[in-house]
Amino acid sequence: MNANVQDVVVLLGDSITEFGWDPHGLAQRLAQAYARKFDVINRGFAGYNSEWVIPVFEQFFAKSQDQAHLPKVQLLAIWFGANDACFPHEPQHVPLDVFTTNLSKLVNYVKSPDSLYYSPSTRVVLITPPPLYLKQWNEYLAGVGEEPQGRSLDSSHRYAEAVKEVGKKEGVPVVDAWTGIWEAAGKVEEALRKYLKDGLHPNANGYAVVYDGLLKAIGESYPEIHPEALQSVFARFDEVLASQNLSKTLIKRNAFVTK
Amino acid sequence: MNANVQDVVVLLGDSITEFGWDPHGLAQRLAQAYARKFDVINRGFAGYNSEWVIPVFEQFFAKSQDQAHLPKVQLLAIWFGANDACFPHEPQHVPLDVFTTNLSKLVNYVKSPDSLYYSPSTRVVLITPPPLYLKQWNEYLAGVGEEPQGRSLDSSHRYAEAVKEVGKKEGVPVVDAWTGIWEAAGKVEEALRKYLKDGLHPNANGYAVVYDGLLKAIGESYPEIHPEALQSVFARFDEVLASQNLSKTLIKRNAFVTK
Repeated sequence: MNANVQDVVVLLGDSITEFGWDPHGLAQRLAQAYARKFDVINRGFAGYNSEWVIPVFEQFFAKSQDQAHLPKVQLLAIWFGANDACFPHEPQHVPLDVFTTNLSKLVNYVKSPDSLYYSPSTRVVLITPPPLYLKQWNEYLAGVGEEPQGRSLDSSHRYAEAVKEVGKKEGVPVVDAWTGIWEAAGKVEEALRKYLKDGLHPNANGYAVVYDGLLKAIGESYPEIHPEALQSVFARFDEVLASQNLSKTLIKRNAFVTK
Repeated sequence: MNANVQDVVVLLGDSITEFGWDPHGLAQRLAQAYARKFDVINRGFAGYNSEWVIPVFEQFFAKSQDQAHLPKVQLLAIWFGANDACFPHEPQHVPLDVFTTNLSKLVNYVKSPDSLYYSPSTRVVLITPPPLYLKQWNEYLAGVGEEPQGRSLDSSHRYAEAVKEVGKKEGVPVVDAWTGIWEAAGKVEEALRKYLKDGLHPNANGYAVVYDGLLKAIGESYPEIHPEALQSVFARFDEVLASQNLSKTLIKRNAFVTK
C-alpha cells in the first residue's frame, strides 16, 4: 500500500482530538508509542459535535467492500461531548438523547454486521469529555475578543456520564477523561488549570491523564494491540545486526507477534 | 478509503526520522502544520542506513498500478546519512559512492517513469544529516554502557555534502540540516549541544532548524503544498456555522484550493 504498510489507530473527535498533535498531546503520545507498529490518524475536527461528524464519518471510513486492500483500522477512539454539552442556545449544542444516539450510531457503524461500514477488525473505545472550567474558558474568550459561552462543569459532567452509559449499552470500553482529570485536580475547580490550557482543552498534564487512561483501557480490553504487545513491522536494528540473511530479515512482518 | 481520506507526507529515514514523533520533533511539527490537510506518515527506521532501506521501500511504497485508490503521497522527504557516515569498520557504514547511488535510486523509484513505483504526484525533498558531535555522543554511549563508535563531524559533513550533490544531479531540493545546525551553533562544536540531545540526534532546537528549512524548501520548490496554501479537507468550524446547507458544506473537499 502506498506508504501504508502499517495498520492504523484512528482518533475521531472535536478540537480536543485535533489539537492532539500538539507536543505532549494525545495523538503525539500515541504516535510515539505505536511508532513502526501502527500509524496514528487524527480525525479531530475543531468545533464539531457528534451530529456534524456523522456525514463526515460516512465519507472517511471505508465501506466494507473497500476495506480489504486498505490499512486496517485496529482501534477507533471516539471522543465527543465537549461541544455537544454547550447550552441549548449555542449552535454547537446537541440534546443529550441525540448525543447518545449519535455515539451509538458511530459505534455501530463499525461494529454492526448490518452496517455498510462494518469493520470486524476495528476495536472501539469511547472517551468522555474533560471537565469544563468556565472561569478559565471565559478568560480565554475575553482574551481573544470573543463573547462568553454557555457551557458549564455540570453540563460537561452530564455528557461524560452519558458516554459511560453508551459504553455499557454497546459493550465498549470507556476512558473516563472527565473523572480522571477531576480527581487529579482534587475535585477543586480552580485546580483544573493544572490540566486545562484554556478551561476547555487539555494541556500536557490533561492529555497525560487521558493517554494513561487509554493505554490502561487498551491493556484491559484489547491487550493484543497494546503497544508493548506488538512488534515493529520491519526488523529492529539489533535484529538487522544479528541477521545471517538480510533479505529475509528485512521482509515486512505482521505487527501482531505470532505465538 | 479506510480513514485515509487525506493525502500524505511520508518521512523516510533512520532514527532521526523515527524519533520525530517526540514532542517538538519533525514529524510532530509537520503533523500539527498539516492537520486536516495531509496525514504525516513516519517511515523512520532506527539504526538503518541507505542500503537496508532499499528493500524496505520496495515493500511499503505502492507500485504504480496500485496507487489509484490509495492516498496520494504528495511529499516524500528522504533523510539518510547519519548512520551511513559511520567509519568503515562499523556495521552501519555505507561507502560514499554507494550512499549517493542509493539516494539516487530512492529518488528515481518515484520520479522515473520507468520505475515500478513511479508516482507522478510525489514531490521529493532530500535532507542532509546533522553535524555529529562525537564527544557528546560518546558520553551518551558511555552512559548506557556501550562502546565508543567510529563517527566524526568531518564524516557527517562529507555525507551531507554528498546529499547536496545528489539533489543537484536529480533536480530535487535539499534541506541542508548539517549547515543549518552548524551555523546556528556558531560553527563551534561544543555549542552543538544546544541542538543535539546526544551528539547524534537533534533535540527540539535541532528539529526546529530542520522544520523551518523544510517549510522554506516546500514554499520555494512546491508552494502548492505549503500548509498555508491548502484548505482543510472537511469544512472549518466557521464555515459550518455560516452554512445554509449543512449536508453540502460537510462534503469532503480537495485539500488543494481550486482557483
